[in-house]
Amino acid sequence: EILSAIAAQFSAGPMSGKRVLVTSGPTHEPIDPVRYIANRSSGAQGAALAVALRDLGAEVIFVTGPASVPPPAGVAVHRIETAREMLAAVEAALPVDAAIFAAAVADWRVENSLTQKIKKVAQTSPSITLSENPDILATVCAHPERPKLVIGFAAETENVVPHATAKRLRKGCDWIVANDVSPATGIMGGSNNTVHLITEAGAEDWPPLPKSEVAQRLAARIAEALA
Amino acid sequence: EILSAIAAQFSAGPMSGKRVLVTSGPTHEPIDPVRYIANRSSGAQGAALAVALRDLGAEVIFVTGPASVPPPAGVAVHRIETAREMLAAVEAALPVDAAIFAAAVADWRVENSLTQKIKKVAQTSPSITLSENPDILATVCAHPERPKLVIGFAAETENVVPHATAKRLRKGCDWIVANDVSPATGIMGGSNNTVHLITEAGAEDWPPLPKSEVAQRLAARIAEALA
Repeated sequence: EILSAIAAQFSAGPMSGKRVLVTSGPTHEPIDPVRYIANRSSGAQGAALAVALRDLGAEVIFVTGPASVPPPAGVAVHRIETAREMLAAVEAALPVDAAIFAAAVADWRVENSLTQKIKKVAQTSPSITLSENPDILATVCAHPERPKLVIGFAAETENVVPHATAKRLRKGCDWIVANDVSPATGIMGGSNNTVHLITEAGAEDWPPLPKSEVAQRLAARIAEALA
Repeated sequence: EILSAIAAQFSAGPMSGKRVLVTSGPTHEPIDPVRYIANRSSGAQGAALAVALRDLGAEVIFVTGPASVPPPAGVAVHRIETAREMLAAVEAALPVDAAIFAAAVADWRVENSLTQKIKKVAQTSPSITLSENPDILATVCAHPERPKLVIGFAAETENVVPHATAKRLRKGCDWIVANDVSPATGIMGGSNNTVHLITEAGAEDWPPLPKSEVAQRLAARIAEALA
């Protein structure tokens, strides 16, 4: 009886029985043992999404880079550092019903990264050669086990909706959640977010909302799409 | 009477009346609005040092980059992001009796950093041109208001003591606190530290100790040197 009560509780939400993958946070790409290239991302929006999906009853797999916001309770946490590690963790999590790629993945890694610290030599500066990281969103969209619903994020500093609309088609995903992360907006590291939801039907402009509320709205839409 | 009791309390320590500067944490050097180059540094050793010096009665000026460990209470906190901002904050803090440079300052910044996000274009990778950052430790050592005691840190991955001994002479500082930050040591982000104190007299090898205890030993030595 206790067990069935717990089971009932767990199956109460509209997403019970659904398995959802959420990526979050930045990736770190090593230059040498003490230096790395990173993306600005607190992981706050990804963590809020995981909470909202969990609260609707979904089983959440949370693949996170080194974020400043801790991962929520009640989700399966997989910690990674680089983009290649994130891709491996994402592929290992398939199949899922929906995948939401909220992480700020580095587009490039350092090709000539070193296992010893680069020493400073007078009058010379090392040059960093970059090579392209795997495209996790595009890879999952073209995957034999492609989830029914694939959602990408687009952080832009100019022409937000046109860039995000083009990204949706280029990647082959269902929706793009786009936002303007220009320094002046204060979105990076802030608690609010102003997003545009790009779907096949076009662009919806959402009002400025707390990240938790953006997450709840998006989770409700995901539940609807998977119902 | 209450006020004089407080004053007595404040003047109780062996470093009362001494003004000490501590730098801590990494610096972040922007590539574009969403990407940056960083050094691995939790700021744990710098924060522990500030606590130990404060507890000996010193007035502590704490100049910190974006560290994962929060700055301690009871110190004057100055937050910066880049190496150039750290230098400006350090120079503004002079004169001080002692300066301890525990921050992991980026040797290089990105010369061609951009105000708009770099877009990914098929088959091309941007190249990053680096230029040398100001050398904060050397600048303070050669400063007209050079503190009586200047202490640098050296994070090395090989030949720790020889590299640190050479660094002490090259920079013109009094002491170097050197440690081995090879990934295998687990020092980066860990709670312990194994340091070598390099002075004019040579190298002292300290045993592996919690970072708080490294800080207390070093603070005691600083108090002695300033007495």
